[in-house]
Amino acid sequence: MKAYQELSREELLALKQELEKEFEEVKGKGLQLDMSRGKPAKAQLDLSNGMMDVLNSSSDMVCEAGVDCRNYGVLDGIPEARKLLADMSEVPEKNILIYGNSSLSIMFDTVARSMTQGVMGSTPWSKLDKVKFLCPVPGYDRHFAVTEYFGIEMINVPMLPTGPDMDIVEKLVAEDEAIKGIWCVPKYQNPTGISFSDETVRRFAHLKPAAKDFRIFWDNAYSIHHLYDDDQDVILELLTECEKAGNPDMVYKFISTSKVSFPGSGIAALAASEANLAEAKKYMFYQTIGHDKLNQLRHVRFFKDINGMREHMKKHAQILRPKFETVISVLENELGGLGIGSWSKPKGGYFISFDAMEGCAKAIVAKAKEAGLIMTGAGATFPYGKDPKDSNIRIAPSFPTPEELAVAAQIFVLSVKLISVEKLLEK
Amino acid sequence: MKAYQELSREELLALKQELEKEFEEVKGKGLQLDMSRGKPAKAQLDLSNGMMDVLNSSSDMVCEAGVDCRNYGVLDGIPEARKLLADMSEVPEKNILIYGNSSLSIMFDTVARSMTQGVMGSTPWSKLDKVKFLCPVPGYDRHFAVTEYFGIEMINVPMLPTGPDMDIVEKLVAEDEAIKGIWCVPKYQNPTGISFSDETVRRFAHLKPAAKDFRIFWDNAYSIHHLYDDDQDVILELLTECEKAGNPDMVYKFISTSKVSFPGSGIAALAASEANLAEAKKYMFYQTIGHDKLNQLRHVRFFKDINGMREHMKKHAQILRPKFETVISVLENELGGLGIGSWSKPKGGYFISFDAMEGCAKAIVAKAKEAGLIMTGAGATFPYGKDPKDSNIRIAPSFPTPEELAVAAQIFVLSVKLISVEKLLEK
Repeated sequence: MKAYQELSREELLALKQELEKEFEEVKGKGLQLDMSRGKPAKAQLDLSNGMMDVLNSSSDMVCEAGVDCRNYGVLDGIPEARKLLADMSEVPEKNILIYGNSSLSIMFDTVARSMTQGVMGSTPWSKLDKVKFLCPVPGYDRHFAVTEYFGIEMINVPMLPTGPDMDIVEKLVAEDEAIKGIWCVPKYQNPTGISFSDETVRRFAHLKPAAKDFRIFWDNAYSIHHLYDDDQDVILELLTECEKAGNPDMVYKFISTSKVSFPGSGIAALAASEANLAEAKKYMFYQTIGHDKLNQLRHVRFFKDINGMREHMKKHAQILRPKFETVISVLENELGGLGIGSWSKPKGGYFISFDAMEGCAKAIVAKAKEAGLIMTGAGATFPYGKDPKDSNIRIAPSFPTPEELAVAAQIFVLSVKLISVEKLLEK
Repeated sequence: MKAYQELSREELLALKQELEKEFEEVKGKGLQLDMSRGKPAKAQLDLSNGMMDVLNSSSDMVCEAGVDCRNYGVLDGIPEARKLLADMSEVPEKNILIYGNSSLSIMFDTVARSMTQGVMGSTPWSKLDKVKFLCPVPGYDRHFAVTEYFGIEMINVPMLPTGPDMDIVEKLVAEDEAIKGIWCVPKYQNPTGISFSDETVRRFAHLKPAAKDFRIFWDNAYSIHHLYDDDQDVILELLTECEKAGNPDMVYKFISTSKVSFPGSGIAALAASEANLAEAKKYMFYQTIGHDKLNQLRHVRFFKDINGMREHMKKHAQILRPKFETVISVLENELGGLGIGSWSKPKGGYFISFDAMEGCAKAIVAKAKEAGLIMTGAGATFPYGKDPKDSNIRIAPSFPTPEELAVAAQIFVLSVKLISVEKLLEK
């Protein structure tokens, strides 16, 4: 198959006609498909149904601290849940603080706290003229939404195959005191699927920020979310690296079981230095009398320990793996060699990242929608929803059934082809 | 029995000796008792154990909105939980927004939001030189802690038998634009147990605050928490009154099931005008992908509707009522006519409020502690922990068993007598 760029105008016009016919046929089917969000499928939710049975009306509901989990008390999480999430976060128990059902809330509250209270004695960010965050792109839209909501200026940093471009990160944080943070998804990154290299993690640990209240917001959302048993990414543990580098307070690590147990009914934690946790716990003390300890207990009784959790994740992988492979195989078969797109082949996480020809992403997403396929909005993977190249599209293959997915992938590649031909004809 | 004030110095000295002897005897028993927090007793928690059984691995977990409660989605609460908490809040469903497990968190987040985002377009409070809140006293320590944490200046307003002194409230809010809010527990108030009169509620609805972003923080924590079936307080519904008065946006109502189902594992809601809810929901959109819908479903499946919840509260009352009556009877028998203290006789809620002779509260609490009885810290019911008269003590009779409570009440009255005698001897 020839690359589209090598086709003559006549060939492109003929191809366009053919693709349009194909497209009208698919459109006529009136399909409704969704590859927009990293949402677990029903079969994945069923894996955790047993969690509904581990606590019943005759269960002992006293935790290891001797406290009745049905009552008030134990602000920082029951000991057994702290142990489980510490293991999941690869930190000692003293470095873990359990929150409610969502790691996004912890990140939000951490930014909110910095706005009104400052960070370890620094000026509250709301009192500063300008606060900036570095945003590796493409990245997670909900991160960018939080910083935008608080009026924080966002600066794009390119993602490389090894992680964020550390030359740029090092330079910017060293010279600009207004830069207070950087958003990172270090493992199976959303959306590229890449994992940060050891060198990247070490360079993060050795950052020399101008701002004393600079923090790395390390959202380890996919820490145990592998697709393969025998080919898994491993990243260096950043808190340890920061300690070794003499920067123990520079990182906040976020984690949750949203895509392990149930989205919205999981448990979440902050992992950080004891000094950072003391500050977070103070805020928590005023914010709540305590989080849902029964749900913490439910998680511990169901998973038992980190090994139980890892075994459980293999079952998720069995469901997710064929979906990723279906999409990637359609992309390879249909777009391979055409020169109109490239895509990631992640070994974990929830997304495939697709880069179309420049200026085509919005049009492709709109085209797919015409045929009943909802994709993540083009631009969503960039701060302010603005992809400077209008090129990146996030593909989320988890929610549809395998059958739906095969059809969805076909609609997607057809949309890519059609828009690319139109783009080439514009020249 | 003569009032202590009428005793001669000699009589007081003899009484002191006698009381000290009694006290040493009790102290010798090495008791450990706690009347410090409004914490439900184990028997009350057992009432809701059936909630652990309503969802199991084979339950249908799809809510009325057609959404699987195990997955992401439905930011503002599942429809059936909105209905239940709307009924509990006495507002239409359009005026309810479901949050997580704690109404304190909603109050905290509401203040936090006002700090960084302002209120309906007003200047964010963090950008103002001075923000003030009115605090009816005695009141709830956790309210005062939130405003203190955000650097908000607190102004005491006396509680009358009808509610806060509205002459003062009306005057202050009308003349000072820095006053942005007032904390209220309108029913079975913490700690006085009184309920606001209809006139008080109407005067609240008709307030003419200088600050456009002034809000009444209406913490209806004990809305259905009656002690008696046949003698219950009823308060006017403030949102309706505010609408009638042309001030629909002036109130935020907070509610939770913490003392209905499980503290820490309940569900909570904000009730307010649609304009206020739109603003709160925007914040929520950035803060979380959604609250725990399985726990919402669990609550609805267990209580069915507001009538089921009311029936459930009668069972709580059966456990709480004798405890309140035990304490009040000891107070009456032991302190009646002595002129060294007065106390409330609430018909609901979680507290009895005790007013000692001026300058005695701290010493009484310390004395009780000597004999192994933990009371709420004296001063806790006032902003900054400072009771100007050092007089008010909050009694929380819910947690101890009836047997423990009888002993605890005896230690308390003994401490009151002893400290009062010492105080009178100082003169």
